[in-house]
Amino acid sequence: MTRPPLRQLLAEARSGVLVFSITPPRRSATEERIKEIAEVTLDRLSALDLDGLILYDIDDESDRNPDDRPFPYLPTLDAARYYADHLTGWRQPVIVYRCVGKYPEDELREWMTRAGPEVLSVFVGASSGGKSVHTSLRRAHELRAEFRPDLPLGAVAIGERTDEHLRMLAKQDRGASFFVSQVVYHVNETKNLLSDYFYECRARGAEPRTVIFTLSLCGSLKTLEFVRWLGVDVPRWLENSIRHSADPLAESYRQCVAIARDLIDFCEHLGLPYGFNIESVSIRKAEIEASTDLAAEVAGMLRDRR
Amino acid sequence: MTRPPLRQLLAEARSGVLVFSITPPRRSATEERIKEIAEVTLDRLSALDLDGLILYDIDDESDRNPDDRPFPYLPTLDAARYYADHLTGWRQPVIVYRCVGKYPEDELREWMTRAGPEVLSVFVGASSGGKSVHTSLRRAHELRAEFRPDLPLGAVAIGERTDEHLRMLAKQDRGASFFVSQVVYHVNETKNLLSDYFYECRARGAEPRTVIFTLSLCGSLKTLEFVRWLGVDVPRWLENSIRHSADPLAESYRQCVAIARDLIDFCEHLGLPYGFNIESVSIRKAEIEASTDLAAEVAGMLRDRR
Repeated sequence: MTRPPLRQLLAEARSGVLVFSITPPRRSATEERIKEIAEVTLDRLSALDLDGLILYDIDDESDRNPDDRPFPYLPTLDAARYYADHLTGWRQPVIVYRCVGKYPEDELREWMTRAGPEVLSVFVGASSGGKSVHTSLRRAHELRAEFRPDLPLGAVAIGERTDEHLRMLAKQDRGASFFVSQVVYHVNETKNLLSDYFYECRARGAEPRTVIFTLSLCGSLKTLEFVRWLGVDVPRWLENSIRHSADPLAESYRQCVAIARDLIDFCEHLGLPYGFNIESVSIRKAEIEASTDLAAEVAGMLRDRR
Repeated sequence: MTRPPLRQLLAEARSGVLVFSITPPRRSATEERIKEIAEVTLDRLSALDLDGLILYDIDDESDRNPDDRPFPYLPTLDAARYYADHLTGWRQPVIVYRCVGKYPEDELREWMTRAGPEVLSVFVGASSGGKSVHTSLRRAHELRAEFRPDLPLGAVAIGERTDEHLRMLAKQDRGASFFVSQVVYHVNETKNLLSDYFYECRARGAEPRTVIFTLSLCGSLKTLEFVRWLGVDVPRWLENSIRHSADPLAESYRQCVAIARDLIDFCEHLGLPYGFNIESVSIRKAEIEASTDLAAEVAGMLRDRR
């Protein structure tokens, strides 16, 4: 049986969605190098049973945290441009992220209007309240409603924020039809959010939308520090286990699988539609390969539920 | 193969220990009623593959929390007396709890000295720092070291307290050779404690001792409120699921099994010796039966690890 396309899976809020996410290459890379990266990426993704590909839109987020950024911010190619120019070999849907604050209204509107039928999007608001933006998240939602209401739109869900379930419902009212979580390391916080969201939907008579959980391998303590700098809640025991492990990547892999299993059980029992997003943002070969393995393993876990 | 006795399992810090815990009957019960309760208890425990029985020592703990106690405090029979007078049919070891602050030194010393070879104990300190006590926990440890150093002694481990791993190590230095946790509803907090304890042991070159996790079914929202009143950390999602469930007891059972599975995986991977204590403190028939079922199910999970 052929699996329905991502757009339909999300419209029908069906569980078991699996996507993979990548960051476009650095802007400083040569044209040749970019081509090479795109080819390698498509090659390793082709073997996976994915419903789509997420292309992140990177913002420097230096306003997020006064502490030093553990990794330098390196400008990357625009996701939409990278997709159009280099990923034509990708035959499945793409979810193009838009940090909407980066774009003047007309640029955002222009992009939306031109986006092909295989494109979905996730609009991301500013990383802090004080940041000056070209277009606010609310305004971006209005533009979509006016110019491209058929563009399937997602929103980010961040378990670390209080009342996030209310924000999710507000975004849902403004057109978001699915959610992609922040990287999940703290399952308990994620369960709190899901539970609050589910029962708030019930209280309002609203239909819960699919929540896609982002899993990201962490190959070193430095990566974990970066994740924390980004605002992700990391349990102490998890940090301890990475810190003391002789093979942090294998330890992290094991934890990601356990998190996936836990969230599948939780969502199935609650009756909340869910999916997974396997993130591959590292440029280290071992981490790239491990993320592909993780996607294959999660695909296996989802197989009889899709 | 015959399983070694509890004393030896704990001395050797072997994983897979399974005990069951009960509260002695109310002091107001008639002699006949007490006899009846003891018989029923022994009867339902005889079918279980237990390593021992915990007898709680109940303190009113009204100093713990200025809020109203959700259930009234009803004085119960002394655990040691209940055991001596009514549980002679129990052929396995017992762990008799002693809230040491309740007893004058000579009474505690007398009890220790007379305790038979099948008796182990857990000393519990005062429920708040401000409480006036007959014997402090530290003094109780000294008395045991002096008068009954061969009495296997445990201590409570409370995941909700900061630096609890340091307290555990201090108690270990004063003679405690195993730990029994507070009721576990918040696995994440428990993992934090276990992780801190494990790595602190490693840093000091100390041998980690067995941690016995207490699982307790919660048949109603009121019971959950009581648990919280006692200082137990209950995740919001777990409270939500009990609150919204048509069958809170079945929901709680499911969660206890999931907690057990999670902690087994965690401890096995870390290399920390562990066990379980299935608590049965309710007087409702359905909850009593469910706790016996839970003990049987956890015994099954431990079978190939014992």
